Amino acid sequence: MNKISKLFNIKYPIIQGGMIWCSGWELAGAVSNAGGLGLIGSGSMTPDILREHIHKCKNSTKNPFGVNIPLLFPHAEEFIKILIEEEIKVVFTSAGNPAKYTSFLKENGLKVVHVIANTKFAKKAEEAGVDAVVAEGFEAGGHNGREETTTMVLVPLIKKAVSVPVIAAGGIATGGAMLAAMALGADGVQIGSRFVCSKESSAHEMFKQKVLEAKDGDTMLSLKKLVAVRLLKNKFYEDIAKKELEGASPEELLELLGQGRSKKGMFEGDMDEGELEIGQVSALINEIKPAKEIIDEIISEFNQAKNTVSGVEL
Amino acid sequence: MNKISKLFNIKYPIIQGGMIWCSGWELAGAVSNAGGLGLIGSGSMTPDILREHIHKCKNSTKNPFGVNIPLLFPHAEEFIKILIEEEIKVVFTSAGNPAKYTSFLKENGLKVVHVIANTKFAKKAEEAGVDAVVAEGFEAGGHNGREETTTMVLVPLIKKAVSVPVIAAGGIATGGAMLAAMALGADGVQIGSRFVCSKESSAHEMFKQKVLEAKDGDTMLSLKKLVAVRLLKNKFYEDIAKKELEGASPEELLELLGQGRSKKGMFEGDMDEGELEIGQVSALINEIKPAKEIIDEIISEFNQAKNTVSGVEL
Repeated sequence: MNKISKLFNIKYPIIQGGMIWCSGWELAGAVSNAGGLGLIGSGSMTPDILREHIHKCKNSTKNPFGVNIPLLFPHAEEFIKILIEEEIKVVFTSAGNPAKYTSFLKENGLKVVHVIANTKFAKKAEEAGVDAVVAEGFEAGGHNGREETTTMVLVPLIKKAVSVPVIAAGGIATGGAMLAAMALGADGVQIGSRFVCSKESSAHEMFKQKVLEAKDGDTMLSLKKLVAVRLLKNKFYEDIAKKELEGASPEELLELLGQGRSKKGMFEGDMDEGELEIGQVSALINEIKPAKEIIDEIISEFNQAKNTVSGVEL
Repeated sequence: MNKISKLFNIKYPIIQGGMIWCSGWELAGAVSNAGGLGLIGSGSMTPDILREHIHKCKNSTKNPFGVNIPLLFPHAEEFIKILIEEEIKVVFTSAGNPAKYTSFLKENGLKVVHVIANTKFAKKAEEAGVDAVVAEGFEAGGHNGREETTTMVLVPLIKKAVSVPVIAAGGIATGGAMLAAMALGADGVQIGSRFVCSKESSAHEMFKQKVLEAKDGDTMLSLKKLVAVRLLKNKFYEDIAKKELEGASPEELLELLGQGRSKKGMFEGDMDEGELEIGQVSALINEIKPAKEIIDEIISEFNQAKNTVSGVEL
């Protein structure tokens, strides 16, 4: 049995990435019902809202699901308490030091997975006692590493660096890419952008449509002087890019960024002034479907691609 | 039989990328003798030197080999004449408009492959009549596209966009990555960085050593305001990066760049002031070997990875 399926007691080693404003209980529940692992993205929630999503997710599925917590987030500690009270079994941590909470979380019965983008943090996470790492490449949407290492290079590097299971993320929206990730040594995959364009995602319809229209070159890693984030190009992105080309300071960029940009874009549908986080793989996404159909399609493509490469005789 | 092996009449669908200062007749001949397709990298040669390398390559192998020509290069037209006079059968063109010479080259009996980094140029190349395209991702060393699309995303995109065979490049140094490229839809692979660290490469020994020592995060896409190029970090890179952060103009960057930087670094071994072009995958390269051993190892890893993924039942 696959290491990741076994670790989480799920049918397919497919994790739905926890994404701000896009992955509430409805998406997480649907993915878990379809045999993957759904994650509630807590990064855009208040403690009350997180608790509500956990309750609704429990009601929507009998299967395991988890919560993603960005550790640098102001509510992180409160969220961890909520997870323990609610007897959540799986947490994906990101954007912060894995040494801080991992042992505490594990003592309280949670499986802990940390998201990394380089060898150094993969080793740190392993030393902290995580059950697995997500190796997230440069092509992924949203927050991203400074090293700009792509999935193709990062996955085999991390596989060599640690002995815990490795979940590949970044650039994966199809079964072919899932097979590619496994050929690189991954034990499972985390998929974000593709699930933004699911029926159950809480992304604004305007944002979903804009993702469907995206072509290659339409996303770019931005705001590297603050926290690097991959954005879909729009007026807000262009304003930032212009400032950056002129050599703007972190302070100037923070001022332009202001407050509430991601909610405005991804949740409220302001396509000009909002921040739109999505991966490069948006160029390959052309349809909004229910999460179950997405997963079934990925598995069918995976098996097809497996048959194709099995036939290559070298 | 594999489309790329058939197109070039070679044993394995492995192309050795044409690289300035690193891939002369000795490397190209060794790769072709080992069953891949060796390419002489003409971008750092004068017409006389190119002719000499072609003669020596003909003497070193009975198998097909080719020449890479960057079309924006001042000698491009003269090089094309030499290829025809010398009855070369394969040319890889890059960095320029594929419409300019493709029909002329094909009328003169050459197979023509054009290197692209986006959908638009892949379609342009197909319309110009090329026999195949190289889809080169962001992680690749040396000159690179502006869109920053990674191999993981670019290969399936290009596969959908054109019907000619697709050769994946960028991030490929092992048989596992070769299988991953094929799972993404590639018909063959082009490998550069790994062959820089071959016994037969003409890279300076100091440069080869520095590539072996490279870790993740040690290369970066640089000089985006001129022609984007992936560089190994050194003093020269840091000087450029500092200027870029301050918002330097293309003119200021050109002045800092000066003349002969790549020769100084890659061929003459000046590790501080020279320009060192290499891919992200340098982080996975740990040994200098003869080209034949590299190819044999890649094929053996490919078959091993194929067996592993064949066993994944989903």
